[in-house]
Amino acid sequence: MQITGKNYIGNTPSALGTATFNALNPATQEALPGQFYLLTEDEAAAITKKAAAAFKIYNQKSAEEKAVFLDAIADEIMALGDELLRRAAAESGLPLARLTGERGRTIGQLKMFAALLREGAWVDARIDTAIPDRQPLPKPDLRSMLIPLGAVMVFGASNFPFAYSAAGGDTASALAAGCPVILKAHPLHPGTDELVAQAIISAAKKTNMPDGVFSLVFTDEAMAIRLVKDDAVKAIGFTGSRKGGMAIFNAAVNREEPIPVYAEMSAVNPVILMPGAVAANASGIAQGYATSVTMGVGQFCTNPGLVFMVDDDNTKLFLRSLADSVEKIAPATMLSKSICTAYGAGVEKLKTIATLSAESALPADDNKTEAVPHIFTVAQKDFMLNKNLSHEVFGPASLIVLCKTVDEICEALKDLEGQLTATIHANAADEKYLSPVIALMKAKAGRILFGGFPTGVEVCDAMVHGGPFPATTDARSTSVGSAAILRFVRPVAYQNFPQHLLPDALKDNNPLNILRIVNGQKSKAAV
Amino acid sequence: MQITGKNYIGNTPSALGTATFNALNPATQEALPGQFYLLTEDEAAAITKKAAAAFKIYNQKSAEEKAVFLDAIADEIMALGDELLRRAAAESGLPLARLTGERGRTIGQLKMFAALLREGAWVDARIDTAIPDRQPLPKPDLRSMLIPLGAVMVFGASNFPFAYSAAGGDTASALAAGCPVILKAHPLHPGTDELVAQAIISAAKKTNMPDGVFSLVFTDEAMAIRLVKDDAVKAIGFTGSRKGGMAIFNAAVNREEPIPVYAEMSAVNPVILMPGAVAANASGIAQGYATSVTMGVGQFCTNPGLVFMVDDDNTKLFLRSLADSVEKIAPATMLSKSICTAYGAGVEKLKTIATLSAESALPADDNKTEAVPHIFTVAQKDFMLNKNLSHEVFGPASLIVLCKTVDEICEALKDLEGQLTATIHANAADEKYLSPVIALMKAKAGRILFGGFPTGVEVCDAMVHGGPFPATTDARSTSVGSAAILRFVRPVAYQNFPQHLLPDALKDNNPLNILRIVNGQKSKAAV
Repeated sequence: MQITGKNYIGNTPSALGTATFNALNPATQEALPGQFYLLTEDEAAAITKKAAAAFKIYNQKSAEEKAVFLDAIADEIMALGDELLRRAAAESGLPLARLTGERGRTIGQLKMFAALLREGAWVDARIDTAIPDRQPLPKPDLRSMLIPLGAVMVFGASNFPFAYSAAGGDTASALAAGCPVILKAHPLHPGTDELVAQAIISAAKKTNMPDGVFSLVFTDEAMAIRLVKDDAVKAIGFTGSRKGGMAIFNAAVNREEPIPVYAEMSAVNPVILMPGAVAANASGIAQGYATSVTMGVGQFCTNPGLVFMVDDDNTKLFLRSLADSVEKIAPATMLSKSICTAYGAGVEKLKTIATLSAESALPADDNKTEAVPHIFTVAQKDFMLNKNLSHEVFGPASLIVLCKTVDEICEALKDLEGQLTATIHANAADEKYLSPVIALMKAKAGRILFGGFPTGVEVCDAMVHGGPFPATTDARSTSVGSAAILRFVRPVAYQNFPQHLLPDALKDNNPLNILRIVNGQKSKAAV
Repeated sequence: MQITGKNYIGNTPSALGTATFNALNPATQEALPGQFYLLTEDEAAAITKKAAAAFKIYNQKSAEEKAVFLDAIADEIMALGDELLRRAAAESGLPLARLTGERGRTIGQLKMFAALLREGAWVDARIDTAIPDRQPLPKPDLRSMLIPLGAVMVFGASNFPFAYSAAGGDTASALAAGCPVILKAHPLHPGTDELVAQAIISAAKKTNMPDGVFSLVFTDEAMAIRLVKDDAVKAIGFTGSRKGGMAIFNAAVNREEPIPVYAEMSAVNPVILMPGAVAANASGIAQGYATSVTMGVGQFCTNPGLVFMVDDDNTKLFLRSLADSVEKIAPATMLSKSICTAYGAGVEKLKTIATLSAESALPADDNKTEAVPHIFTVAQKDFMLNKNLSHEVFGPASLIVLCKTVDEICEALKDLEGQLTATIHANAADEKYLSPVIALMKAKAGRILFGGFPTGVEVCDAMVHGGPFPATTDARSTSVGSAAILRFVRPVAYQNFPQHLLPDALKDNNPLNILRIVNGQKSKAAV
């Protein structure tokens, strides 16, 4: 495969515009090969038209046909081989080992959705059979299932060039649901996105999917918003900044026809260290925390940016262990110069309000856009007075809030905005204080952890990667795991339809052999 | 019970304001007993504070406790006896027989949600157990389930004084989900709402529910919007006009923390009469259509306002049968003078564009706020030129669009906005034309019917009373049937939690005996 820098109007590469941009190697600031063409209005109109037309064909494809398509995407991505990994590493500054793992996760996500389609019960088939002689009125035959919404626009994320970009979780779940995807490439890794897009298009051709089931665009903000507002676009998947997510959300809900937006935006992922747990294992917790904060150069949406603990006799030991751990962690290249600059500014601001308590002892190489890990402490009363301290600093920085009591921890938690995750470390000695803390964690977050750290988002049925605003714009959803498919569907009911006009999922003889709700009972039996 | 006209701040009646209004008998325009006090700012603040506090207690109640509460509401409503029916009839102009049936449906809804809670599987429990020795990283234990969003504000509907008002489907599903309810009484039946509210509060007290689990408010538009914007309110249920629904939606999505709005607003519910079906049964279909259009004085959201048919040799017979049926249907009292006036204006407008082809031969009694049924016809080409013709005229009016071909029907369907329902009448002779028509019906509506008419909304698992915008502001939901509970919840995942701190739904030994997804398999077995 070759990077052309062109947009893909379905299967057709297109470069009608004159404005272009380059990808930069974040470590060197050198331009990487490839000029990427910004989308023009004519191309935008052609893409949305094609996506709408493709939907009419794609939504008729069987579960098996869609599963074969998803499997083929996985195969085509693997077939790109090391060329893809090298390009992603050059564009993102992320190490090859991490990217190899992330590619594996991406392949795993595609195969998970293929398996979900083949199993088939996710469509939530419900059948209530007729009672013609019911008094005072006959009961009709009613059968419902989930159907796709239409074309979905997906915004690739800077920090996951594979797992939340061209063929990432949003794309995989939308395609699995039966929705064509218009992918906005991320400007920090456009070449990676183009290579993966080529793999998707190749898979679409090989498995006889309609032209337009997948399109790739390189756009500026204004053109992205124009696409969000297009009548053919029926839902949005986004992972990125709060500012970006809110611009998209506001455009989408104020359209003539408002559409759902699943924007995963910002979180500080509070970690609560209860006194008993710290007393039992101060240095172990400190090491785990240091590793979690600096993992992926702190560029995970689940990065633990805020720690609450009771300031007692063990705090000193904890902070010393933490300092020992952090000072050994080498600075590393961030995703871009501007992200690194913003991180530096965030750290400088923290320095003016909080106390620096741990930092890497190794110097950053400024020529490599490197970030130095930093841990700060602040007293709870100062934290409560300064709302800015509860906002995310994207990168390997974290703030420890020292509280006098568990009550002070609860008071601070109450004030937090919605979060992706909340974590508690506790042992038997903490038991009597847990109930209100866990209730608050549940109220604030989409995923709550007992022990461990929130970085590392397992892809499985029970994962919830979501949470109350502003962690996401739709707390009713998850963007990771099999339930992510539920974001792109709506229910439809068939009343008194003859068997041959019903979809397979709702036919009497249950040809798909899926679990259904039949007259109130879960059953795979024929009706 | 006695109508006091007071707001209910949880269990506490309150009338701090000076502004009041009366309910009017729509048939006579006479004021009914009771002065209703408009909510003041202090009362609004007290109510939202109480609802937020009640949520913390109510969301900890077990499924059984909530089920007992819902059953008790049903009992308390029945205990109001004929007094309730008489007040509802006086306020709405609806006949006692209809209201008795609607009360039965309301009781049925409450009991359906109680049964759903006792069955328990609706919480969508998912368990992925740990694999500590997985390479390269251990797999954590993850378990997820649905939890309530928080306090829900419900707007009572004018046309369903019971089934979509104080203890209607929105309230029942929100309470079942674990959410306190703030009910905005409908100004056309405030006394009915107060009586039912007293029943709910009485049930709450008897079953030990927290004060604030239910509040009742009488408000003007500005105060209603102020409540929608309150931080304590986490979701909205609404049934009513497009103008009202959109005002609420716009306020809710443009809050600092946007919240979901389930507004069921407007639909013309297209009915497609295929040539074969009309040839086989013109007069039968005509009679059914006349009955459906005029049922409840045409004041159902599923009223069939638009019919598409091919203008052929059978059309005349169909229209004559229709005229015969309609002329015998007596004019009847509408819900209010203003609704009746708007209906009259809608009919006058139709007269200027379309041809009147059937109307009641019986005179309306203007002193009784009565509406006369009207059926119009128009040629497809004129329909396509006049967008206004596809908008709802609330009341017993309907428009038949005469098409030259089935293709013309499809062309017209494509142009329609989202609908609650779409209906097709077809027989074997129509088979070859069905596929594109049904695809369009599915794309446009939440419920599609083969034969019959859309009025009559069954309360069951498979019902979808929803649909693409502007039928609703959230096509992913239904407001009728057991799935309505899913509007007021979000998923939360527990990672590596010890057994005793997990909710019962997620414990290894499955104490609730519910069907769960355990490591990819649906099972009731212990883990």
